[in-house]
Amino acid sequence: MSQIRHALSVKRADDFAAWYQEVISAADMAEESGVRGCMVIKPWGYGIWERIQRLMDDRIKAAGVQNCYFPIFIPLANFEREAAHVEGFAKEMAVVTHHRLIADGKGGLIPDPKAKLEEPLVVRPTSETIIGDAMARWVQSWRDLPLLTNQWANVVRWEMRTRMFLRTSEFLWQEGHTAHEDREDAVKETHRALEMYRACAEEDLALPVVTGEKPENERFPGAVETWSIEAMMQDGKALQAGTSHYLGTNFAHAAGIKYQDREGSEQFCHTTSWGVSTRMIGGVIMAHGDDDGLRVPPRIAPHQVVILPMLRDKPEDEALLAYCEEVRAAIAAQSACNEAVRVLLDKRPGKAASKRWDWVRKGAPIVIEVGSRDMEGSKLAVLRRDQLWNADNGKPNFDFADRNGFIERIGAVLEEIQDNLFAEARDRRDANITRGVTSMAEVAAFYDGANKYPGWLEVQWSKPTGAALEKVVEQLKELKLTIRNVPSNAAAADGTCIFTCEPAVERILIARAY
Amino acid sequence: MSQIRHALSVKRADDFAAWYQEVISAADMAEESGVRGCMVIKPWGYGIWERIQRLMDDRIKAAGVQNCYFPIFIPLANFEREAAHVEGFAKEMAVVTHHRLIADGKGGLIPDPKAKLEEPLVVRPTSETIIGDAMARWVQSWRDLPLLTNQWANVVRWEMRTRMFLRTSEFLWQEGHTAHEDREDAVKETHRALEMYRACAEEDLALPVVTGEKPENERFPGAVETWSIEAMMQDGKALQAGTSHYLGTNFAHAAGIKYQDREGSEQFCHTTSWGVSTRMIGGVIMAHGDDDGLRVPPRIAPHQVVILPMLRDKPEDEALLAYCEEVRAAIAAQSACNEAVRVLLDKRPGKAASKRWDWVRKGAPIVIEVGSRDMEGSKLAVLRRDQLWNADNGKPNFDFADRNGFIERIGAVLEEIQDNLFAEARDRRDANITRGVTSMAEVAAFYDGANKYPGWLEVQWSKPTGAALEKVVEQLKELKLTIRNVPSNAAAADGTCIFTCEPAVERILIARAY
Repeated sequence: MSQIRHALSVKRADDFAAWYQEVISAADMAEESGVRGCMVIKPWGYGIWERIQRLMDDRIKAAGVQNCYFPIFIPLANFEREAAHVEGFAKEMAVVTHHRLIADGKGGLIPDPKAKLEEPLVVRPTSETIIGDAMARWVQSWRDLPLLTNQWANVVRWEMRTRMFLRTSEFLWQEGHTAHEDREDAVKETHRALEMYRACAEEDLALPVVTGEKPENERFPGAVETWSIEAMMQDGKALQAGTSHYLGTNFAHAAGIKYQDREGSEQFCHTTSWGVSTRMIGGVIMAHGDDDGLRVPPRIAPHQVVILPMLRDKPEDEALLAYCEEVRAAIAAQSACNEAVRVLLDKRPGKAASKRWDWVRKGAPIVIEVGSRDMEGSKLAVLRRDQLWNADNGKPNFDFADRNGFIERIGAVLEEIQDNLFAEARDRRDANITRGVTSMAEVAAFYDGANKYPGWLEVQWSKPTGAALEKVVEQLKELKLTIRNVPSNAAAADGTCIFTCEPAVERILIARAY
Repeated sequence: MSQIRHALSVKRADDFAAWYQEVISAADMAEESGVRGCMVIKPWGYGIWERIQRLMDDRIKAAGVQNCYFPIFIPLANFEREAAHVEGFAKEMAVVTHHRLIADGKGGLIPDPKAKLEEPLVVRPTSETIIGDAMARWVQSWRDLPLLTNQWANVVRWEMRTRMFLRTSEFLWQEGHTAHEDREDAVKETHRALEMYRACAEEDLALPVVTGEKPENERFPGAVETWSIEAMMQDGKALQAGTSHYLGTNFAHAAGIKYQDREGSEQFCHTTSWGVSTRMIGGVIMAHGDDDGLRVPPRIAPHQVVILPMLRDKPEDEALLAYCEEVRAAIAAQSACNEAVRVLLDKRPGKAASKRWDWVRKGAPIVIEVGSRDMEGSKLAVLRRDQLWNADNGKPNFDFADRNGFIERIGAVLEEIQDNLFAEARDRRDANITRGVTSMAEVAAFYDGANKYPGWLEVQWSKPTGAALEKVVEQLKELKLTIRNVPSNAAAADGTCIFTCEPAVERILIARAY
């Protein structure tokens, strides 16, 4: 077995954080912008986001939710109202105080003191309060309910330590906001959104997740219940990839979202909110990337197939390009996962072999190289990103396939790659959830560093609340651990709480997390 | 001929501004948000924007332009640099000065004085300077050119007087930014974008436009050439619906966008930028709306066909709904303008006749009502929004069509509606451009109010510059007029300048404008 020379300089096993940064840069997905906490999302990263948006938006619309757009600026008064209703209200936000710049007389510009706003405006960190205002206007009677809205938007939360895609001051997301007649209907919507996120993560992003309710201390401020999807990264850490909140009547009280019920009396609405963001892209990188770069699941790949003509700067190139265009058109006429195959003929100048590695690092699911001999023999040199290396000779694992036969089955191959990436991540997740640990000493030993990427623990607990829960959180914090969620599909409790030694009531996942 | 009772309370002929507001509210497109200068875009308005986005984005991608995302915040220093390079730099912008709120001790919140930013950040009014920074990083050699980027984003320009869709402090748009080796290539891109806007406006929005170059005084600050598409509204005013700028090397100098040319020496790039915004929706309203509400061109209609079952709150409703679902599926299987027909079965409770008027006001191209008798006779009661009234009896102009025959030709009918809306707007525009006026006295008479909606004048001028142009602009301003553009397809000049009495060199459009 020969030595494989991988395309990246850092390996996952050696330095996961440095590897993550290298993938982003080697796949040309994003970069630091020079503006504090904000990144530039480059075409390949943004193309993946556009695919996620399209697929998620289809799911959102299929559920009867309607897209709207609400103001980016929220008056201070809304947050004052919210602070009165919501404990733990977060205050790290960008505040607009002036509406004009003027020359400072020294060649520079300053905010014009004469253009100071009477009331500062906050750049939305999330839109519960401003959408609550709209809901209060829109809802009069039970006939107006449920009210199901969503927006795709940028939001800003001032972050001191940032990491591309995972934690940036500005990020892109969708936020669903719904109002309902009663608890039952609102909780149903909370679960519908959660299930939609699970399906999108697993089916579209090939990202296996654990759905479950967050413990009290991890709830969104103002929420009665917060549910999440948690994904396992290849370093064993958890990534919260989406949340769905049942907000009770808390925000309805703050914004005055009331309706006349079927009996004619006035009631407060029960509301929900749910969101996923560009953070998901960080999850895709850390779940599917390998030591050669990113691997993009076909459903969210901007280009699923890239054709590289082996040009030689000779007149024969023209015939080869024409032939490749024919191949491209034949592939584009195929479908995979119920959509036309997205195929790019990469005509840029340069050696095919060098361009091949660009696309390997970017993680295009299939790369096809075509030289003049392949053209004559009706062959295609096919490289699958999920089966990149020939372990026997340490070389790229090209399949020299019959042209027409391969094109006919290309849809099936793409679906197989999608399935392979999911199965690999699912098996890894399942192998790295450890059960049976019954004491904090064992927890500490499990995370003592002997195993570099230890994964998650599923333990039993008595669901303490208040001060008792705070004590648990502190204990875990010392080990850099957090409670991720109460897995919806966990077995019933049958033991003793690992923290309180009381009888356990349910099982929870604990892990290090992004 | 009977009297028609229109669905709106205000007629275009009586009070165009009030009519515009009523359409927006009657079609449930948008509303004031309560946040200064910002609106809430409601599902029907946002759905139209999503359609425009989709169609424009397809055109942008087809031209090889790649979508990215850049930070919403721009450091003050970028604008200081720009102010040094760009005359007429606009300063009405939202300025972020703090990154935290704290309690003021009196139950309120204030910006935390300890969280004052060292350098204020500006909420992007447009992104030339921040994208220029990225281009300076990305471009090294002529091989990296042309660099073709676009982003879909929200931008903020502080506006004192706002009007929904037409002028709001926050609005949604796309902004293309490109860098090129030389003037020729950049000017070519400027025109490509302009032609793309013309095609999208005319083919997708059914909005006839005049393309042409803006005069010097109307250029984007920093641009060497600014080109626009100008559309005529039904009150005869002009709406600038999109612009494309050739920026020379001005922004390249400010941001340091340099490349090594084919001979190895360093050159500044020539850049362009081009944008269209949610303002286009205002143009659609004012070009196609009538005294019954909005009329949405089929290509940009979120629902092109709406089916209204005539429910009677009886057990028979079930069979009728099942039948309507069958009709819906049959229509959805048809295509119009190369896309599947977008059809909605509106099952909400309520009388079909009342829901009919909702959809008329919203401007759905085709409304189909189905009662049990229609079901038995395989008939559909079809109402075309472009042929709403029967002038003979003053009633809605229903066509009682054979079900299968109508469904088979529904794609053609939608395309005909699209064409009709365009032809109507084009004929109105052509009928309201007046030529042959040769003196300012005639201009003043033309706009003296005798004709309530006088339209545009095409006049000849000597293309004065500097102070002479300023004088012209002042003269026009007294009549509330502006120069719109130099129509690309105007005849050659053959007369005398209406302003300077010198020999004319070209023709310009003058008009009142939004």
